[in-house]
Amino acid sequence: MTQGLLGNNVVVHIGILVHDIDKVSQAYADFFGIEKPEASWTGPLEEAETNYNGEPTPARAKLAFMKMGSIQIELIEPDEHPSTWRSHLEEHGEGPHHIALVIEGMKEKITLLESKGFPLQQKGEYPGGRYAYMDTFKELKIVVELLENDKK
Amino acid sequence: MTQGLLGNNVVVHIGILVHDIDKVSQAYADFFGIEKPEASWTGPLEEAETNYNGEPTPARAKLAFMKMGSIQIELIEPDEHPSTWRSHLEEHGEGPHHIALVIEGMKEKITLLESKGFPLQQKGEYPGGRYAYMDTFKELKIVVELLENDKK
Repeated sequence: MTQGLLGNNVVVHIGILVHDIDKVSQAYADFFGIEKPEASWTGPLEEAETNYNGEPTPARAKLAFMKMGSIQIELIEPDEHPSTWRSHLEEHGEGPHHIALVIEGMKEKITLLESKGFPLQQKGEYPGGRYAYMDTFKELKIVVELLENDKK
Repeated sequence: MTQGLLGNNVVVHIGILVHDIDKVSQAYADFFGIEKPEASWTGPLEEAETNYNGEPTPARAKLAFMKMGSIQIELIEPDEHPSTWRSHLEEHGEGPHHIALVIEGMKEKITLLESKGFPLQQKGEYPGGRYAYMDTFKELKIVVELLENDKK
């Protein structure tokens, strides 16, 4: 098995930034003949503890997930507050933002990646787990999102 | 099973445009603990029959594939000739360009997609099959690549 910095190399989803999640979800549903996914907001600051570039941020985003074979496509419509989503959208326009992989030991993985020159961009909590966007764009030409799910 | 315009919704790879495929391949190998993939050129015009925006083009690209779980990541370093790769790279910079799905009946699928408002951007042949990039960016916020592999 591969090891590398994350302990695995299994991509579980691709995240795509959009301006109008309702419209783009409908376009995917029509194009691929799948059910239109329901979008839901990420938690408010007090729940999600969203932290961007080392500072708490009230930023939230509407997310919609679609199963596309063995991976998912995640559509992301960010609000106007500072976040990796908003910043990437303004710099690059709509389009793909990240690939996500599931890891164990979030704190240790962030420390390891930072020591290798991949800074933490943004992190937050979601029901049942937490995420971290690491700034891998310069080297890998895409942002890597780490996902850690709590043991049940 | 889902139908939609393609007959399935199984993403088989993500294509990422880069300026220096050797450097980025090495970065993936180091980051994910995988073997550095060997890059190879797409065929010359007389083999690949590359057609971009309705015209034959001598454009070629260096490609490298890496297995990342059940999908692949494809790195693409295009040459200077006109292509969807070169044009996207100049407009959006390095980063993700397309998701690819395997279909049957390339000619019919291209006709169907064009009738639904998704123009053909570029097509070509590779050993054992053929590809077509369809302009789905406006609606899906990513380009869709169709792949048809010859029956063995």
